[in-house]
Amino acid sequence: MRQSKLFTKTAKETPKDEVSINAQLLIRAGFIDKLMAGVYTYLPLGLRSLEKIKKIVREEMNQLGGQEILMPALTPKEIWEVTGRWDKIDVAFKLDGDGGKQYSLGSTHEEVVTPLVKKFVKSYKDLPVAVYQIQDKFRNEPRAKSGLLRGREFSMKDLYSFHKDEEDFSDFYEKSKQAYLNIFEKCGLNAVIAEADGGVFTDKYSHEFQVFTENGEDIIFSCETCGLHRNSEIVKEEKCPQCGGGMVKNKAIEVGNIFPLETRFSDAFGFSYLDKDGKEQPVLMGCYGIGPSRVMGSIVEVNHDEKGIIWPESVAPYSVHLVSLCKESADIKKADELYETLTKQGVEVLYDDREGATAGQKFADSDLVGLPKRVVISPKTLAEDSVEIKERSSDKVEIIKIKELNSRLF
Amino acid sequence: MRQSKLFTKTAKETPKDEVSINAQLLIRAGFIDKLMAGVYTYLPLGLRSLEKIKKIVREEMNQLGGQEILMPALTPKEIWEVTGRWDKIDVAFKLDGDGGKQYSLGSTHEEVVTPLVKKFVKSYKDLPVAVYQIQDKFRNEPRAKSGLLRGREFSMKDLYSFHKDEEDFSDFYEKSKQAYLNIFEKCGLNAVIAEADGGVFTDKYSHEFQVFTENGEDIIFSCETCGLHRNSEIVKEEKCPQCGGGMVKNKAIEVGNIFPLETRFSDAFGFSYLDKDGKEQPVLMGCYGIGPSRVMGSIVEVNHDEKGIIWPESVAPYSVHLVSLCKESADIKKADELYETLTKQGVEVLYDDREGATAGQKFADSDLVGLPKRVVISPKTLAEDSVEIKERSSDKVEIIKIKELNSRLF
Repeated sequence: MRQSKLFTKTAKETPKDEVSINAQLLIRAGFIDKLMAGVYTYLPLGLRSLEKIKKIVREEMNQLGGQEILMPALTPKEIWEVTGRWDKIDVAFKLDGDGGKQYSLGSTHEEVVTPLVKKFVKSYKDLPVAVYQIQDKFRNEPRAKSGLLRGREFSMKDLYSFHKDEEDFSDFYEKSKQAYLNIFEKCGLNAVIAEADGGVFTDKYSHEFQVFTENGEDIIFSCETCGLHRNSEIVKEEKCPQCGGGMVKNKAIEVGNIFPLETRFSDAFGFSYLDKDGKEQPVLMGCYGIGPSRVMGSIVEVNHDEKGIIWPESVAPYSVHLVSLCKESADIKKADELYETLTKQGVEVLYDDREGATAGQKFADSDLVGLPKRVVISPKTLAEDSVEIKERSSDKVEIIKIKELNSRLF
Repeated sequence: MRQSKLFTKTAKETPKDEVSINAQLLIRAGFIDKLMAGVYTYLPLGLRSLEKIKKIVREEMNQLGGQEILMPALTPKEIWEVTGRWDKIDVAFKLDGDGGKQYSLGSTHEEVVTPLVKKFVKSYKDLPVAVYQIQDKFRNEPRAKSGLLRGREFSMKDLYSFHKDEEDFSDFYEKSKQAYLNIFEKCGLNAVIAEADGGVFTDKYSHEFQVFTENGEDIIFSCETCGLHRNSEIVKEEKCPQCGGGMVKNKAIEVGNIFPLETRFSDAFGFSYLDKDGKEQPVLMGCYGIGPSRVMGSIVEVNHDEKGIIWPESVAPYSVHLVSLCKESADIKKADELYETLTKQGVEVLYDDREGATAGQKFADSDLVGLPKRVVISPKTLAEDSVEIKERSSDKVEIIKIKELNSRLF
């Protein structure tokens, strides 16, 4: 992408109405734009990162056996009355349709997915089933001050699993933990699994995936001896319930969670199956959530410095920032050629070909945008058929021949 | 995909609450599920087709110079008051937030995109700009009886263009017509461009892309001599205004539309630019819509027979339906191998490996689902190292050697 064609621009000033690091940097770097509290537009650079995160999530969900669907955001009151949750979900947006109809904007989708899967599952032979979607969810959050970490409209991957017995459920639940850890690792996030309250649906714990950072809203107690992590909500005393060791507390961002739902929703919708003996049995369910937009915000919270964002390669909008300091048309032609050659080879390049900007502005913008590798091409480097290469996460600058560039970018 | 693992099933019965062909067939074939009038879930097969349509749209929009963004569905009342449209859009869903705040669910996005692009465009050097998104829109349609043709929540691609003068606008507008025709052609739809009312924004015509079919909601007058098409809304007499020839009228589905917006929105938001002489000038705008979900419904309306859907290759969820009639484990192994070989070669195969279904059920399902090619493998064909191959759109059945299959599938 030629930066001269990109319609967004970076901003020097920190937006006054944002207190979170992720929103400040993502807005300044031209990744997102704020429409109102907790509601953002994804600009071209931001959408590319968001889509890369979704792709990683999708791959792991498919690997886990999940089948992708897409449920509506607009849901009728009737389905929420079946489970008694119409008045129970504080953050649900409600709206009126024609003829006295009432709708809720999907804040979660158990009430849609359970009767849906019920239509197709009759026998034990039809189980297990795992379906997921990646879709925008809506929650009327009272405090939406954390940028992409707590949105009123946000991207969510929600998977729901359906099982014939506890053993099958547990097996899938454990596998989902590994899939989640894979996702966060691929996104460059170091997440741990923390036990948390199971809510009203189960006596078991639910499990949260937490990334430690000073800007986190959650408090996690971690055992220094055995490595157990627990959300402070369920910590009764500051000793490890597993080994008796001492626990330390740290702030963290919850980037995902998984819940055993038992038969809470299948019972409500009368969703049972026939076992081998033709006997009706309750279907066991689990739900598994990750917010790709929250993951994006978390990546920025833990990967930045005073100059800007430091994107992990896997989720960077482009992997190379080709910065041209060329002014003469012969040099510009060489820079253009390098851009086109790299792009044809499949390297994702953002090409700073802007004529008006100074070298200082271009370097500052490059640090702010935070692509993994910066390649500078200038009259000076071209005199030696070279470019300057630098990783965003390092201070080391190298001069290498243009023909050697390939081996450094793949 | 192994059909035995697909959680959806086909249905013999036509859903009683659907009058449109597209909804009836898509529901019976397991592509979509109805949550309420005008609101559907996309099941695994349906989502694959929808994504293929979106991909075609995206390619053409990028080719046209469009930059993809993603705007929110939740929009604040204030931006609609700027243009005076808060109370003007009948189909807008409105909802209440905290502290007396009011929101509208995006039914169109001029009020979001205009102030957004204004933030980045100051000079004639920053123009033209074209941005688009593919996103779910919400409209409280009073009559949502046409399946995917008229949804209350539906997929929409909306592009907005910004120009420094009439010439630049016209140039882009004409190019967009070709991009749209390319999209419909790639989707297997034979669309024509019809002149239509420009609405309150312009004295010019807007342009609709219309697909002729008996089930269309629009009436189009077409000149048999010069090929001019006009929406009946603006036809004053039944003679061609271009050549005086006779016009015939036919029903059609509007699958896309493009509008000159003139300065209607840039004026409202005070969006001007500085020209070469440093003088403020108004920005000219255009908007360009295609509904991928409506396109999907339209494809089914014009491509089906009494047995089911007939998908064009480009938008079929899979290109081959491999139907196995094998019962013995040695034969099943060969069928499995063929499935795996084809899949590894990049052929998109839906593999009917179901044990319980009869040959008759499998053939009926295959016709209903409507993938472009059906390949049958059975003890009879295996005895001659062959398979039976048939195109969904033809009655011709051929027996070919398995080793020759490749040349027929690529």
